Amino acid sequence: MKHFLEELGDLKQRLLEMGGLVESAIYRSIVAVVEKDADQAQQVLKNEARINQMEIEIDDLATRLLALQQPMATDLRFLTVAIKINNDLERMGDLAVNIVERALSLMQEPVIRPAIDIPQMAKLTESMVHKSLDAFVRSDVELARAVLLSDDAVDDLRDGIYEELIDFMQESSDQVRPGVNLMFVARNLERVADHATNIAEDVLFLVQGVEVRHHANLKP
Amino acid sequence: MKHFLEELGDLKQRLLEMGGLVESAIYRSIVAVVEKDADQAQQVLKNEARINQMEIEIDDLATRLLALQQPMATDLRFLTVAIKINNDLERMGDLAVNIVERALSLMQEPVIRPAIDIPQMAKLTESMVHKSLDAFVRSDVELARAVLLSDDAVDDLRDGIYEELIDFMQESSDQVRPGVNLMFVARNLERVADHATNIAEDVLFLVQGVEVRHHANLKP
Repeated sequence: MKHFLEELGDLKQRLLEMGGLVESAIYRSIVAVVEKDADQAQQVLKNEARINQMEIEIDDLATRLLALQQPMATDLRFLTVAIKINNDLERMGDLAVNIVERALSLMQEPVIRPAIDIPQMAKLTESMVHKSLDAFVRSDVELARAVLLSDDAVDDLRDGIYEELIDFMQESSDQVRPGVNLMFVARNLERVADHATNIAEDVLFLVQGVEVRHHANLKP
Repeated sequence: MKHFLEELGDLKQRLLEMGGLVESAIYRSIVAVVEKDADQAQQVLKNEARINQMEIEIDDLATRLLALQQPMATDLRFLTVAIKINNDLERMGDLAVNIVERALSLMQEPVIRPAIDIPQMAKLTESMVHKSLDAFVRSDVELARAVLLSDDAVDDLRDGIYEELIDFMQESSDQVRPGVNLMFVARNLERVADHATNIAEDVLFLVQGVEVRHHANLKP
């Protein structure tokens, strides 16, 4: 039993390590967009393989723990949630790569006007990612709820950015291509925020159990 | 043991039922875009709640079966794959809703030129979804591999559509807003194809076991 608990601790530790890599990838991808920083962009591309590798290892560890013995209801919930969080983190890593690809295109296009709200949207999204992982580590229900509340603010920022970019593209045909790239940056950030929201929901499920999801029924 | 096998059969049946709903949502969403058909759009929005409800029920059933007894390695793989396929299907349902939202915007904008390759991209994507589910039901490795091969063709179609739409938006400022909407339709279709690819990869993992994923290790 002690062995099993140690393995659960190891799983948590690895998820946090992966979370750190993903947070850093998102941060760098936005620096690459806003400051046209090619080094940061390359760093994200370089770290992608490591994130993908970690996802496979974490998935295998969680699956092995599921197989190892019949886990108690609480551990079972933890393991299924760990598999989901792992998947969310890996997708966030992919989204950071998508943002970097847009950043690399933007570096070859004239800067016409900075997309003012993208850094603000990025800051809020990064804070959601960080809080959702903190909520997971500390089983902190309040923090998880704070993440869910931020999701609407991210959607509002995105809507504002879209409208601003459409105006921008309508002004001149030169601005269509950079406008499209910035639009996809905002779209990818919004999806990162959605994954942070998924993690926060999973934390609520983990801590509060069946009450959160009305139709969950863990008893046979 | 018979009871457990019956439950596994039930789980498979429900996943297929959900797959049918999702396939129909994707099909209708594209009809809504291409034919500006508001009835089909409404139908997709109406069915969304049912797809979300099915996801929760399937997730609960799979989690309950994991808890019920210590499953054999094969059943364990089946259950973890079922949870992933369920998640992919639910996301495809969300993507169909995203496409419908774009369709509803497009209905209020002048049709300037049809986006010729979107129906073709949709047809290929729908066929990937159908084949990936067929591959799952029949444990058909060849069919799963065919899905993986189609993913590149979908990406090529998307690239062509993006370039065509950028030209289109550069031609006139009236075309920016419908161009953006059609771009997001293509982007959502691409993501549907990515989820079908995930399902095909899961089928390969399910049928071929550890060989597909080099780092998998199901033995304790």
